[in-house]
Amino acid sequence: MLKYQQIATEIEKYIEENSLQQGDKLPVIEALMNQYEVSKSTITKSLELLEKKGIIFQVRGSGIFVRRHHRKGYISLLSNQGFKKDLEDYQITSQIIDFDVRKPTQEAAQSLNLQETDEVYYVKRVRYINGQTLCLEESYYHKGIITYLNKEIISESIFHYITEGLGLKVGFSDMYLQVGKLQEEEASLLGLESGDPKLCAESIFHLTNGQPFDFSKVTYNYEQSQFFVQGNSHLL
Amino acid sequence: MLKYQQIATEIEKYIEENSLQQGDKLPVIEALMNQYEVSKSTITKSLELLEKKGIIFQVRGSGIFVRRHHRKGYISLLSNQGFKKDLEDYQITSQIIDFDVRKPTQEAAQSLNLQETDEVYYVKRVRYINGQTLCLEESYYHKGIITYLNKEIISESIFHYITEGLGLKVGFSDMYLQVGKLQEEEASLLGLESGDPKLCAESIFHLTNGQPFDFSKVTYNYEQSQFFVQGNSHLL
Repeated sequence: MLKYQQIATEIEKYIEENSLQQGDKLPVIEALMNQYEVSKSTITKSLELLEKKGIIFQVRGSGIFVRRHHRKGYISLLSNQGFKKDLEDYQITSQIIDFDVRKPTQEAAQSLNLQETDEVYYVKRVRYINGQTLCLEESYYHKGIITYLNKEIISESIFHYITEGLGLKVGFSDMYLQVGKLQEEEASLLGLESGDPKLCAESIFHLTNGQPFDFSKVTYNYEQSQFFVQGNSHLL
Repeated sequence: MLKYQQIATEIEKYIEENSLQQGDKLPVIEALMNQYEVSKSTITKSLELLEKKGIIFQVRGSGIFVRRHHRKGYISLLSNQGFKKDLEDYQITSQIIDFDVRKPTQEAAQSLNLQETDEVYYVKRVRYINGQTLCLEESYYHKGIITYLNKEIISESIFHYITEGLGLKVGFSDMYLQVGKLQEEEASLLGLESGDPKLCAESIFHLTNGQPFDFSKVTYNYEQSQFFVQGNSHLL
């Protein structure tokens, strides 16, 4: 972790530990420089990172303010390394439904820039939050990039393994959402009724070099899941 | 619009007009400097903006690549100035259900930093896409900030009026999503069945100075709406 990232983490912790609220003012840049004993450019980079993460906002000529609205148990649709972090106060477990090496579907092949004759790891699992079903997940991993998976790995956080175990750098993701009605098999795996509402999230995850490595479809239990998204006008 | 924003817009247009695909390589920085006749720092800022907007990604030592996955008709959950832009190829119209000045609900007052004795503009409307119901929207506007609204304004894009008419600068937004079942009144306004799936989006919109000015609840017609979200690992 670089110095400016470390300091960003410390400022974030400071905000949490002191239960600072939306709109609360942080010390001025000079005070932060003294407090953390770093240069102005380091503090500036730390603040930029915190702004990107939606934790603070800066008003020119006025100061640095706390942004985060905290709603416990909401899953961020922007963080793209699994929801372990959003739900860290909850117990997340998995039940494996299916796991093998196979040819990708046409959709998966296209999303992963593969031929339909190439091979993927296919993982289908139900994830639980404090013992309740949270979601049903079907994932296709590019086998040329995610070279090895086994049952033990996939019963835990696969993204943790990808970054820590395989040392890969996760870059960006594209996610497509749609609401619909649960089909019979989905309902039965989630412990809901056929025809109940569902949120389907289709995602393509890329490494920092732009290679897509995971195409996944996640169907959420609507009774157990809530989401948040932070928007910025510069994103227009 | 500043120079670097102008150039970002031109590069974006270039990508669209040439139908460049995900992973296609753009010219190197020096070539872009020559092409647009600007300094390196301007191009760098343009590229940073495009990266934030999820249109390109940069790989150190390797180049600049096109990122955008285009799926027509998807509403971006990150852009926070209404969905006029995502749905520009469609006809968006509104039917006003309710419009008045009133006291905010407790929830709205809290979201807008108001007392329950303060006043808000209350707008309830159904929005249509090509004549089909798209969503039901209930909004509370801080009357101290959004000082004037009328029926003509609210039958069009309210955000367009806020930025162009009132000259306000929209900053960031926080959005909370939940899936559920339509209640009778919602279903009837959307032309669906009671108990059908719904996506509810609760948003708080802020000016660039951090003041919240709009608290809105939008209930989407699940048959007509699809969403996308772009994630970045720096957002963790």
